[in-house]
Amino acid sequence: MSDGTVIDLNADLGEGFGRWSLTDDDALLESVTSANVACGFHGGDPATMRRVCLRAARGGVAIGAQVSYRDLAGFGRRAMDVPPDELAAEVAYQIGALEVFASAAGPGVAYVKPHGALYHRVVHDSKQAAAVIDGVLVACEATGRDLAVLGLPGSRLLETASAAGLPIVTEAFADRAYTAGGTLVPRAEHRAVIKDPQDVVARAIAIAAGVPIDAHDGSSLTVTARSLCVHGDTPGAAALAARVRAALVEAGVQVRAFTGSGSEQ
Amino acid sequence: MSDGTVIDLNADLGEGFGRWSLTDDDALLESVTSANVACGFHGGDPATMRRVCLRAARGGVAIGAQVSYRDLAGFGRRAMDVPPDELAAEVAYQIGALEVFASAAGPGVAYVKPHGALYHRVVHDSKQAAAVIDGVLVACEATGRDLAVLGLPGSRLLETASAAGLPIVTEAFADRAYTAGGTLVPRAEHRAVIKDPQDVVARAIAIAAGVPIDAHDGSSLTVTARSLCVHGDTPGAAALAARVRAALVEAGVQVRAFTGSGSEQ
Amino acid sequence: MSDGTVIDLNADLGEGFGRWSLTDDDALLESVTSANVACGFHGGDPATMRRVCLRAARGGVAIGAQVSYRDLAGFGRRAMDVPPDELAAEVAYQIGALEVFASAAGPGVAYVKPHGALYHRVVHDSKQAAAVIDGVLVACEATGRDLAVLGLPGSRLLETASAAGLPIVTEAFADRAYTAGGTLVPRAEHRAVIKDPQDVVARAIAIAAGVPIDAHDGSSLTVTARSLCVHGDTPGAAALAARVRAALVEAGVQVRAFTGSGSEQ
Amino acid sequence: MSDGTVIDLNADLGEGFGRWSLTDDDALLESVTSANVACGFHGGDPATMRRVCLRAARGGVAIGAQVSYRDLAGFGRRAMDVPPDELAAEVAYQIGALEVFASAAGPGVAYVKPHGALYHRVVHDSKQAAAVIDGVLVACEATGRDLAVLGLPGSRLLETASAAGLPIVTEAFADRAYTAGGTLVPRAEHRAVIKDPQDVVARAIAIAAGVPIDAHDGSSLTVTARSLCVHGDTPGAAALAARVRAALVEAGVQVRAFTGSGSEQ
Repeated sequence: MSDGTVIDLNADLGEGFGRWSLTDDDALLESVTSANVACGFHGGDPATMRRVCLRAARGGVAIGAQVSYRDLAGFGRRAMDVPPDELAAEVAYQIGALEVFASAAGPGVAYVKPHGALYHRVVHDSKQAAAVIDGVLVACEATGRDLAVLGLPGSRLLETASAAGLPIVTEAFADRAYTAGGTLVPRAEHRAVIKDPQDVVARAIAIAAGVPIDAHDGSSLTVTARSLCVHGDTPGAAALAARVRAALVEAGVQVRAFTGSGSEQ
Repeated sequence: MSDGTVIDLNADLGEGFGRWSLTDDDALLESVTSANVACGFHGGDPATMRRVCLRAARGGVAIGAQVSYRDLAGFGRRAMDVPPDELAAEVAYQIGALEVFASAAGPGVAYVKPHGALYHRVVHDSKQAAAVIDGVLVACEATGRDLAVLGLPGSRLLETASAAGLPIVTEAFADRAYTAGGTLVPRAEHRAVIKDPQDVVARAIAIAAGVPIDAHDGSSLTVTARSLCVHGDTPGAAALAARVRAALVEAGVQVRAFTGSGSEQ
Repeated sequence: MSDGTVIDLNADLGEGFGRWSLTDDDALLESVTSANVACGFHGGDPATMRRVCLRAARGGVAIGAQVSYRDLAGFGRRAMDVPPDELAAEVAYQIGALEVFASAAGPGVAYVKPHGALYHRVVHDSKQAAAVIDGVLVACEATGRDLAVLGLPGSRLLETASAAGLPIVTEAFADRAYTAGGTLVPRAEHRAVIKDPQDVVARAIAIAAGVPIDAHDGSSLTVTARSLCVHGDTPGAAALAARVRAALVEAGVQVRAFTGSGSEQ
Repeated sequence: MSDGTVIDLNADLGEGFGRWSLTDDDALLESVTSANVACGFHGGDPATMRRVCLRAARGGVAIGAQVSYRDLAGFGRRAMDVPPDELAAEVAYQIGALEVFASAAGPGVAYVKPHGALYHRVVHDSKQAAAVIDGVLVACEATGRDLAVLGLPGSRLLETASAAGLPIVTEAFADRAYTAGGTLVPRAEHRAVIKDPQDVVARAIAIAAGVPIDAHDGSSLTVTARSLCVHGDTPGAAALAARVRAALVEAGVQVRAFTGSGSEQ
């Protein structure tokens, strides 16, 4: 593997709410280089946000705002037709709320990643993508920093972010099957989720190295991304994240946050 | 009246939520020098927060975070026994959410004022007062600015803020009766609220000038404060605020925000 | 006008939330025969629900559950992709919550009408329409009564309700323009909303009598419905409702709730 | 042990919310005879309420409404100064929402038990106790049934319920230390919670049989109650509940719901 091979590991953290917890935040922070922190709209109460930011900053993990539709009951997984001005303001609100903790604990919010149904919606929906970026730009104006936008390669979200002059970061999934065209196989389909940890590890290394992987139909596909998403809310998630990280390092891949390393733009 | 007589006028703004509106924000912003903006916990949706911040900044009105218990159903008027670490984080969360809009539109959040039941609780409750100040300090750390704290003279809140090195601003009410001891007569009591606009105006001028006013029992009382609170959610509120301001100016009082003018500390 | 001409007048009531109010419930209850009471998901706090039910029952006004997506921030006007089992349970939950007040005050919930974005969604969306009816059936099972379903003629909602054996009630709008095909002209279009009270009154009488009205393109159209919706959240709404009712009575139309009068099914 | 020794086992169920789960509802339903089902204000989404009611009804487990302050973020553990009319309506709302599922699945809501901070508040607070009972009476009026009230012996809640003519059910805790005076030792104190399963089982049998147990100070105390509360939200909770039930049965105690068996009143 070439010396310059670099990958970021990101995971969703702080997705509990009050009495309810979901992710093993401390364990995941040992492995990931970027933490997508829930901001209170689909999960993530203020005390949890504060604690996760403190621990992330202490461990040198970059902090991202995982922004969502306002939908605690549905965990942000129910797509909503939110008017653009409302959505933009809701996105900025969430980033600002997280920024207070991230900035008190360390260098502040470094990037933004939509969550759940919003993540999927802004792959294709230009209006909602523009609204999300509008909200991110408010936060950029407020903080005086260029926040990066993390999302699916080819998504409207990244296109819009790029057009607005924001750093963009592409993301891939080592535990999800891809179509020959490079899109994710929908979860409902057979073998959409890769469950064998050994396979997940092998795909992580291949994606990081730019080596082709098997697409769902058996053809060969090269997925390139600056960041790998590790799921945090399944049993054994933290252990799998640790294993992926160790395997990447052993394979000679540098596991490093994308922040401070320049944009892909 | 001496040339140096200065007073700030503050009002609660942006206290609607989505479809519901409460205060005539635009009209009030013509009269007040400080806007206590609701941050979403008792009222104040993100789109309203954004709009109010833009207009306040355009008009040179200082922006304060009106922080509250998390209680939309009760409009923040139901006292809650919130554990200190939760309350501190909730306060910081609200300030951060507002800061993104205030800072994108102008110089950012200048001060913090508790709302409703929290306002009254931190007059006497040392633990909750300390928790609120803990939250304010997180926001100070995040923004790199010393946020002022606006509250009742003699309150635990202002004592704690002062001990923490924060600028404090005392507040008086021209439309509320005072006891001989200088505390507010509870609303439930007879003539607790002064309804005659002429009386309100006269008391506003007296308080600004440091001239004694009549206490509830007929005795004489000098109320000193750097800021006068004008209520915004009653019919005719904006007109009364305009009248108070005009009368203050005519009486030779400078109506000016406390921000940028040094602290009372 | 024939002696048998009968129409119901329905309006949305109790759509405030806590500190915020929206509709002049008491005045509207003087005119309408059916009250669509908000159940807490887009508006409608429990104390308001209780009060509206008491007054409706006292005035002999039929009580309907105005069920909504869970969306206080958007007033239920943002369409949501809610999975059917969640939507069904949310609908039943809202009906049950209202039933406790309606049944303590009088004969209980008589019918169900979806609100806002849900109302429009179930015109075409078979899955969500089926989920709403699933929720209504839970409430029928619980109360031992057949709840009627109020909605747009030709909607999937009414089709599904009818197939499930539930009484259905068709609804028309005297203050909205219709296309030649009998559907509502979208609000965004020119002259979609009829603002002249005299026109609204004339159309109300025509619809009640089964007399043709002018469609948006100038052609002639007969709109038949068992209930007329009167909007309650605009200035002058209560006065307009009173005027419509008086004109209907004067024209010889019986203004009477559809409950207890048999179904259209 | 006398043939007539009877005890009820109750546990809090359905306390998750959307994506978050807390209690192993299915396992607990194997052991308890009464299920305190969360109604959405501190936990308990509608789909969960529906499912728990179906399973409880199928297993012959009595269903109670576990009513709470409106406080998802604090899981209902933060005492709130809710005005009586609001609290009464909020209690009735929750009972009604649960009743729709309980009554569709089986005989309906049989009893009401306050949750968390409300449970503790109504031990001493006469106004809130009266408001809760006011809410319960609305539900009784609506359902035409006398709902029982489950609470701490000697509490204002049970006194008020009894004065209102409602059936009352006293409750004891096998895993909590008691003072010599018969009140619970506050959780913060040393050995307030009994952790050894063998001790818990022994105390359960003693309480059921009316045999004295050791109070916290070593003195002897007889705790009498018609129902034993089994905690559901700790690791191993379901297993402990099963063990307690088995031990009670083996000791000759009848484990049977209090509903249908007459009141203690």
